[in-house]
Amino acid sequence: MAKEKVLLAYSGGLDTSVILKWLTLKGYEVVAYVANVGQDSDWDNIKEKAYKSGACEVIIDDLREEFVKDFVFPAVSFNALYEGRYYLGTSLARPVIAKGMVEAARKTGCSYFAHGATGKGNDQVRFELTAAALAPDLKVIAPWRDEEFFTVIKGRKEAMEFAAKYDIPVKATVSKPWSSDDNALHISFEAGILEDPAVCPPDDMFEYSKSPKAAPDKAEVIEIEFDKGIAVKLNGETLSPYNMLIALNKLGGENGIGRVDMVESRYVGMKSRGVYETPGAAIIMAAHRDLEGLTLDGSVLNLKETLMPRFAALVYNGYWFSHEMDCMRAMLDKSQEYVTGKVKLELYKGNVTCIGRSSDYSLYNMAVASMEDDGGAYNQSDATGFIRLHSLPLKMHASRKK
Amino acid sequence: MAKEKVLLAYSGGLDTSVILKWLTLKGYEVVAYVANVGQDSDWDNIKEKAYKSGACEVIIDDLREEFVKDFVFPAVSFNALYEGRYYLGTSLARPVIAKGMVEAARKTGCSYFAHGATGKGNDQVRFELTAAALAPDLKVIAPWRDEEFFTVIKGRKEAMEFAAKYDIPVKATVSKPWSSDDNALHISFEAGILEDPAVCPPDDMFEYSKSPKAAPDKAEVIEIEFDKGIAVKLNGETLSPYNMLIALNKLGGENGIGRVDMVESRYVGMKSRGVYETPGAAIIMAAHRDLEGLTLDGSVLNLKETLMPRFAALVYNGYWFSHEMDCMRAMLDKSQEYVTGKVKLELYKGNVTCIGRSSDYSLYNMAVASMEDDGGAYNQSDATGFIRLHSLPLKMHASRKK
Amino acid sequence: MAKEKVLLAYSGGLDTSVILKWLTLKGYEVVAYVANVGQDSDWDNIKEKAYKSGACEVIIDDLREEFVKDFVFPAVSFNALYEGRYYLGTSLARPVIAKGMVEAARKTGCSYFAHGATGKGNDQVRFELTAAALAPDLKVIAPWRDEEFFTVIKGRKEAMEFAAKYDIPVKATVSKPWSSDDNALHISFEAGILEDPAVCPPDDMFEYSKSPKAAPDKAEVIEIEFDKGIAVKLNGETLSPYNMLIALNKLGGENGIGRVDMVESRYVGMKSRGVYETPGAAIIMAAHRDLEGLTLDGSVLNLKETLMPRFAALVYNGYWFSHEMDCMRAMLDKSQEYVTGKVKLELYKGNVTCIGRSSDYSLYNMAVASMEDDGGAYNQSDATGFIRLHSLPLKMHASRKK
Amino acid sequence: MAKEKVLLAYSGGLDTSVILKWLTLKGYEVVAYVANVGQDSDWDNIKEKAYKSGACEVIIDDLREEFVKDFVFPAVSFNALYEGRYYLGTSLARPVIAKGMVEAARKTGCSYFAHGATGKGNDQVRFELTAAALAPDLKVIAPWRDEEFFTVIKGRKEAMEFAAKYDIPVKATVSKPWSSDDNALHISFEAGILEDPAVCPPDDMFEYSKSPKAAPDKAEVIEIEFDKGIAVKLNGETLSPYNMLIALNKLGGENGIGRVDMVESRYVGMKSRGVYETPGAAIIMAAHRDLEGLTLDGSVLNLKETLMPRFAALVYNGYWFSHEMDCMRAMLDKSQEYVTGKVKLELYKGNVTCIGRSSDYSLYNMAVASMEDDGGAYNQSDATGFIRLHSLPLKMHASRKK
Repeated sequence: MAKEKVLLAYSGGLDTSVILKWLTLKGYEVVAYVANVGQDSDWDNIKEKAYKSGACEVIIDDLREEFVKDFVFPAVSFNALYEGRYYLGTSLARPVIAKGMVEAARKTGCSYFAHGATGKGNDQVRFELTAAALAPDLKVIAPWRDEEFFTVIKGRKEAMEFAAKYDIPVKATVSKPWSSDDNALHISFEAGILEDPAVCPPDDMFEYSKSPKAAPDKAEVIEIEFDKGIAVKLNGETLSPYNMLIALNKLGGENGIGRVDMVESRYVGMKSRGVYETPGAAIIMAAHRDLEGLTLDGSVLNLKETLMPRFAALVYNGYWFSHEMDCMRAMLDKSQEYVTGKVKLELYKGNVTCIGRSSDYSLYNMAVASMEDDGGAYNQSDATGFIRLHSLPLKMHASRKK
Repeated sequence: MAKEKVLLAYSGGLDTSVILKWLTLKGYEVVAYVANVGQDSDWDNIKEKAYKSGACEVIIDDLREEFVKDFVFPAVSFNALYEGRYYLGTSLARPVIAKGMVEAARKTGCSYFAHGATGKGNDQVRFELTAAALAPDLKVIAPWRDEEFFTVIKGRKEAMEFAAKYDIPVKATVSKPWSSDDNALHISFEAGILEDPAVCPPDDMFEYSKSPKAAPDKAEVIEIEFDKGIAVKLNGETLSPYNMLIALNKLGGENGIGRVDMVESRYVGMKSRGVYETPGAAIIMAAHRDLEGLTLDGSVLNLKETLMPRFAALVYNGYWFSHEMDCMRAMLDKSQEYVTGKVKLELYKGNVTCIGRSSDYSLYNMAVASMEDDGGAYNQSDATGFIRLHSLPLKMHASRKK
Repeated sequence: MAKEKVLLAYSGGLDTSVILKWLTLKGYEVVAYVANVGQDSDWDNIKEKAYKSGACEVIIDDLREEFVKDFVFPAVSFNALYEGRYYLGTSLARPVIAKGMVEAARKTGCSYFAHGATGKGNDQVRFELTAAALAPDLKVIAPWRDEEFFTVIKGRKEAMEFAAKYDIPVKATVSKPWSSDDNALHISFEAGILEDPAVCPPDDMFEYSKSPKAAPDKAEVIEIEFDKGIAVKLNGETLSPYNMLIALNKLGGENGIGRVDMVESRYVGMKSRGVYETPGAAIIMAAHRDLEGLTLDGSVLNLKETLMPRFAALVYNGYWFSHEMDCMRAMLDKSQEYVTGKVKLELYKGNVTCIGRSSDYSLYNMAVASMEDDGGAYNQSDATGFIRLHSLPLKMHASRKK
Repeated sequence: MAKEKVLLAYSGGLDTSVILKWLTLKGYEVVAYVANVGQDSDWDNIKEKAYKSGACEVIIDDLREEFVKDFVFPAVSFNALYEGRYYLGTSLARPVIAKGMVEAARKTGCSYFAHGATGKGNDQVRFELTAAALAPDLKVIAPWRDEEFFTVIKGRKEAMEFAAKYDIPVKATVSKPWSSDDNALHISFEAGILEDPAVCPPDDMFEYSKSPKAAPDKAEVIEIEFDKGIAVKLNGETLSPYNMLIALNKLGGENGIGRVDMVESRYVGMKSRGVYETPGAAIIMAAHRDLEGLTLDGSVLNLKETLMPRFAALVYNGYWFSHEMDCMRAMLDKSQEYVTGKVKLELYKGNVTCIGRSSDYSLYNMAVASMEDDGGAYNQSDATGFIRLHSLPLKMHASRKK
């Protein structure tokens, strides 16, 4: 009988290599799927390692442009920050990877979908909800929640022994006292010494950004041009979504922008502490928000702001592919129709300062706003009626309180 | 017949002095009411000028503690930012001033409530809605919307001539190319050269803060202690609300913190451009938000975040004293019961960085959050059921799409 | 010099006839615009009366299908009820009429837009906000807010005298002790004897529906088929939107369905009392809501329900043509993609009872929902993990309370 | 060694009797806890049966007044309907029962908390989340999710055999083709023949209400008086919460009021079909909503309506005892301060019609609302300014669209 095939999200690290081998020992054929979402990787090395760990096939899938265009930029257009601060760097990568996995599973005839995310984190949820939404028939294997697996591979020590036993190559790197995950949007840090929220992360942990203190003493001035809420030009040059993000990551990182350190509420019920570097998105979002101030009606701003926490929670919790998200996206797209224009920014030691904005679709009218004579564009005495009618309910309420 | 009495919000500036005199010429007795909400003023001079302008009585009312305690701090506990950025510095001052005016009007037997706010701004609304809510019987006089007044006093030139004619003392200051308004919470700038949103404000305009570039090269570390959402101790020392805010204004201003430059949506229908310096509140809000991350359940954070834009709009639009606001406040108070603890911060050239937080009411549990063995506090395989049930609606939706 | 032209919303009643004449006396040429939104009218008679009152041109515009298709049905798909009860019958008619007026004004070269709505009501706002949104350059004339008009035409008596003086024909009808307004969606009653909210409307006031008490003793069973949220077939027969609504008005009215009597909050600040008959929409909404229960994910239902009060307020307050509404509509359209299926209903003496529903896009799965053996579709023990993870934050909160 | 004690939610039915015995066989001492929330029961018989099934102690706890006062009435004040229709009859009973269980567990020294809810339903979640919130240390036993139990007791047949084997008395009733659950607030039906949502429930299923068709031909007029949102008097007579609800159940049931038949979204991920009878609450909510129309500001109504779906979901999903709910409750309480007054209602064949309402705290002002002369209370020309300022953003948006 033909073996059943498993599509495994493979990173080249110790954990997923051990899982790969373990799956083959369990009798599966394993397709190792490696998504390139902009992380720092040696693709040849990963490929080789996957085969050495027992993969029957290795797929390296370049999702970088799709990731930024279809996932990162819409979220930035929503000014989406989970619990007010997190740019959703990992949350946005998971659905694009899982979508790639589903497509690869279909092509390679896999009936299982496996990943190496742990049982305490958000990523397991994001992977599996995406799979449920896109391929409800695929069966899920999550070894870190499988008693048979985790009672044997209890931790790093056992994983190393397992690797040694099965000739899985292991990089002789010094293990860092935290874990990290990087992609084109951000790098995140958690666990280890970061587990005490009273303790500050060491400065040498950061990878995407200089500390504001180490950043240049001279400000950098840039200009971003948006088309319907999407950053399309940097300093006059048209860039693809991925290239835009990378260019701004570099500029932002150099100038100490986009670090976040917070305690957040995981979907699986616990509080956790995360530290993030998101230099490029921090710049785009600041510019985008500023341009929205110029081009969006107060009531549309309010609608977006009110829905933002829900949008961010949908992303964070793994519901990128859901009917509710589709509804949110339709609303978002409509809202961005006029968010077109330019924002000039100064980047300086952690600060992103808007120093000028303009748009052909600006709702700002200098004559009306001015305290000087506006030639009749606005009749000040109109305010009397406006205020009187808005006073009426307050007066009724006041009268009865006595 | 006794003259009718008017309570006038008096600032000592040219406009309200001209209004004061104009009201007396119209046959009113005028009580000049000066609210001290922390602005920079020469109170003796104001008093003298009010009498010279024709006031029958001058009241200087110290509202500084009330302003910060009852208005600023609750808004900061809501993490309230209008349109994502404005700390509501002027919006929060208007209701406390108008409340003071109403009380003074009652004491002095005034039946009119007058102010010098223009017909294009938000302040007229805030003053008058507060008066409507607290004293629905008081009649409002708003000379800048009174044709009889504004067709004569068209601008600064006519006001100066009027002042000269009636011996109203005028400070021989050079007029600045913008207008500003200050209180304990912030200083705001608008109009004049700021009316072009593409143009950056000049650096010499700012008063409450150094530019990040001019701020010290050395970071300042501070610790704020909160009790039920309210900042009560700075570096271990208990401070009154007003003193807390002033101390943090100084620290924040010195370190280039709290500048905002934005185009915003006025309640009266137009877009306007405002520049603000709010150093102290920017620090407190950053610390407060961080402490909430540690002490508030994700669902309470979400509820607060979802309601925040509405809360901020209520404040911005002048509805501090309204039944809806009372409902919001009751919710807010309940949410803050456990927001007690300490946050350590680093202030550096415009950056407020939380470098440690702790609370006796922390919801963070290191054992549960840890990827290391947690002694059974969390059963990883529980996540399987959690994910499966949350997958169910996605699978049903996916199945029908085909 | 050519006279300036005014487009007047004309009903054929006393008020708009007097206004028409008054406008001509003021020197305007007046185009009388009569929108047919399904109200009960003698169009020839209206036309004749308009000319007799001085119109230079009369336009009778059949907007019935547009009204129901583009305004009524989307609102019903949102399950929109203002303040929980009002089906927005008048609110939805105003924007389609004002849109017709704007188009007619363009065609006939009018530069003024006039209506006969009073200064206390919502309709003036709806007319004028629509005009502002669609034709910001059109100037508005609202005689009931024009001192020159309303100080002369103080009430019915003066209007009658004015009509007599200028040979405007007046129907010798007995004036009813309330005012009413009808269209294809509803008939509304207000004012007069209805002004006391403690008093019940007389039974002979109602026009669109029998009282439940007078309705037949036998229930009527019908079936409505929806396509993407829109009622398209009644008892198997395809009907146009307008014909669908009329057919259901008849069925609903006969069976005592759709009466509402409420005190509501007008946009212009006051409470008012309105009585409404909306038989057809009441039936469609009940059926639609039921079908949504079958075909919409709980989270989409929740999103729609949460936004509904805002949607209803936008409609009620006159913001049909606004960017925020466009955003809402985009969301709504996306949400309705699968709201396709049939609902069987029983109509009986005021009750609309769903007695069966089915859909090819149903999310209901009998095997999963059943308490009987479901063949493994649902693993009951999954609930353990689900509950445990959802318990975690509650436990953390509970622990600290001690 | 002393046996460990389990507190079991006991109903006297077959399932919980089998569970009781099974727990004793597993070596536990079992305290049978019977909550009286107004269901129809023979308490002596239940007590006897519990002892016969092996209970070491039986507690019958009268929670009727607490249930209605602390759970039902606040929800009714929120006008809470889950997914627009469900009065939350079971959802509200679970937390009061679980609270009683926790208190009883403490008193009797139980360290386990057991219930007989199935693994597919909402009740298991509600019981266990309440236990988590009130007694995070109590361990949960849910036999229907315990493989050891449910693989033996697969269904009714095995349960009967088990009962026979252990001399557990079984009522020789004919099993109905649905399951039901009743309390003071409602009776619910599900499962069996109701599992097909296309099929109408049989009329002989209903217990709390006559069919509208079978209801009297004469309308019943009643008057309910509210104090701060709570029904306190019926036809002038002061009644306790429980007695109020029972009296209205009787009146409503007699007149065919309060039936709901719907497909709903369970928290555990599936759609299910439920049929409910909630006569009393349907009457109170209709009256309450009407009184709110008279006494609540439009903006407070809007706030409540917007939050209602979330409130209802919190109740439905089992989060009665949660910090978010506490925040909601604080808001609710504040909103109800002025919801005091009387509503007159007509009950007739399924219809609840408000025929009059009055309140000392009414916001309705007849003079202001009237189209007749109001003596200057409202200046119609004020509306001009009101509309102009609200038009401004629409005009700006319109202008740029070209």
